[in-house]
Amino acid sequence: MSLAQSPVDRPTNDTTLAETLLWQRNRDGGTTPPPQWNDTLATIINHRSVRAFRPDALPAGTLELLVAAAQSASTSSNLQLWSVVAVEDPARRARLSELAGQQKFIRDAPLLLVWLCDHARLTAIAAERQMPVEGIHYLEEFIVGIVDAALAAQSAAIAAESLGLGCVYIGAMRNLPEQVAAELGLPPQVFAVFGMSVGFPDPTGETGVKPRLPRPVVLHREQYSIASQEPEIARYNATARGFMREQGMREQDWTQQSIDRVKDVAALRGRDRMREALRNLGFELR
Amino acid sequence: MSLAQSPVDRPTNDTTLAETLLWQRNRDGGTTPPPQWNDTLATIINHRSVRAFRPDALPAGTLELLVAAAQSASTSSNLQLWSVVAVEDPARRARLSELAGQQKFIRDAPLLLVWLCDHARLTAIAAERQMPVEGIHYLEEFIVGIVDAALAAQSAAIAAESLGLGCVYIGAMRNLPEQVAAELGLPPQVFAVFGMSVGFPDPTGETGVKPRLPRPVVLHREQYSIASQEPEIARYNATARGFMREQGMREQDWTQQSIDRVKDVAALRGRDRMREALRNLGFELR
Repeated sequence: MSLAQSPVDRPTNDTTLAETLLWQRNRDGGTTPPPQWNDTLATIINHRSVRAFRPDALPAGTLELLVAAAQSASTSSNLQLWSVVAVEDPARRARLSELAGQQKFIRDAPLLLVWLCDHARLTAIAAERQMPVEGIHYLEEFIVGIVDAALAAQSAAIAAESLGLGCVYIGAMRNLPEQVAAELGLPPQVFAVFGMSVGFPDPTGETGVKPRLPRPVVLHREQYSIASQEPEIARYNATARGFMREQGMREQDWTQQSIDRVKDVAALRGRDRMREALRNLGFELR
Repeated sequence: MSLAQSPVDRPTNDTTLAETLLWQRNRDGGTTPPPQWNDTLATIINHRSVRAFRPDALPAGTLELLVAAAQSASTSSNLQLWSVVAVEDPARRARLSELAGQQKFIRDAPLLLVWLCDHARLTAIAAERQMPVEGIHYLEEFIVGIVDAALAAQSAAIAAESLGLGCVYIGAMRNLPEQVAAELGLPPQVFAVFGMSVGFPDPTGETGVKPRLPRPVVLHREQYSIASQEPEIARYNATARGFMREQGMREQDWTQQSIDRVKDVAALRGRDRMREALRNLGFELR
């Protein structure tokens, strides 16, 4: 299959579901029939972020199932340096929406999960036993907590999608870390890494699968290569423009869009003070 | 179902697969029949890290399928601030094993994936276009790259497990960051966050599903609560001991084991110099 720039070039009925899903993900010529296929792969590879939700509540037991999935993810040395706050109260969701870029879907979706890097639990366990936890104050353990939270969240996200639910990650939960911490009653040494709205997708707001960079840009064999990336990235600009056009979005080069997100301090939307915010939250990051 | 401390107390044939898997994950009294069930949930919730591999190569196309899964994960603002190096060369795997705690499974498994926080790509794109990327030097964007890499890796891990493969995360890839970077030819502003060995599990090395903390310890409703965690943690010490006994491991309280991992600087096994290592790799973390 070749690079397609409009919906009519998409693979049609005579390609298999697997090939269609793989094609949608990269829209490049690299798709070959996969060696094996199953529903889990279909769920994972068909992912798209959902930002329009029906107001319906989740079926009883769903939250517990998502947390079981999250707890099943790997965690460094079984330390489990993460927690999650499930926010269902509409008033609290509305307040958190204000703190996180006024995103409407935080109000609309019945469940907001806020995923935490949690150093407070281990600190409390050690204090109870009058033991030191000198090592927790190093940047390394902050990385561990962030990774633990992310792995747990991603397992929950895939579990949600397998149940027909939609979700979206909310990085804007880091816009005002101290205020988010106050709203959620977080003790020192707990940091809200990101949020995630979960609910039933509103079919009227359905979007396509966003194509990612051509595989050779992110996949390196044996050693990293930067030289080989530029021509593929130019190709991706065209692919991404095709997707934006289909979705009725303003067309723009991905390269320009990405540069704009980090071009100066203002582009970080206040998150340039992350180190100070983390210090205020009790993270020394030595 | 109640807290069980030996295999004979495990649920037997008359419980459903779903209930058995959910029980294994926490071994607490909180298990109720889930509202829905599917193969994806079974794959996620049945996860265990695999550290014993058969030497067999992966079927052709498997790596590409895992990368398609990884690329399907959410990524902050579609920046895709991650990459992965696939290492198959046995000599390079042996050298990386030396750098990452001499772990035998890195030599045994046919594929080592090293997941990268990648700020070099966007920096190169901007340089090519003579544009600034001032924002990339802030801690915020380091968090974004770490989270991006972790979400991608977890999607790949679940995809691998759905194919009957096993994998294990390798945090020890952070023991000697500069040497790992040199071995993988990483340019400045690329950091190997963790490794992941992938292969066919050796059935003689099969382990049980490791029970995690009782759900109420990690799941908070509306606001975080630390006070409610301690009694559940005491209960978990008994659960974890039961699991260690079953697996023929040395029995120890999880609390003590966890405190030992962070009790002092020596417990970090050299990773207390992470800030210096990251500076050497071109991360300013302003």
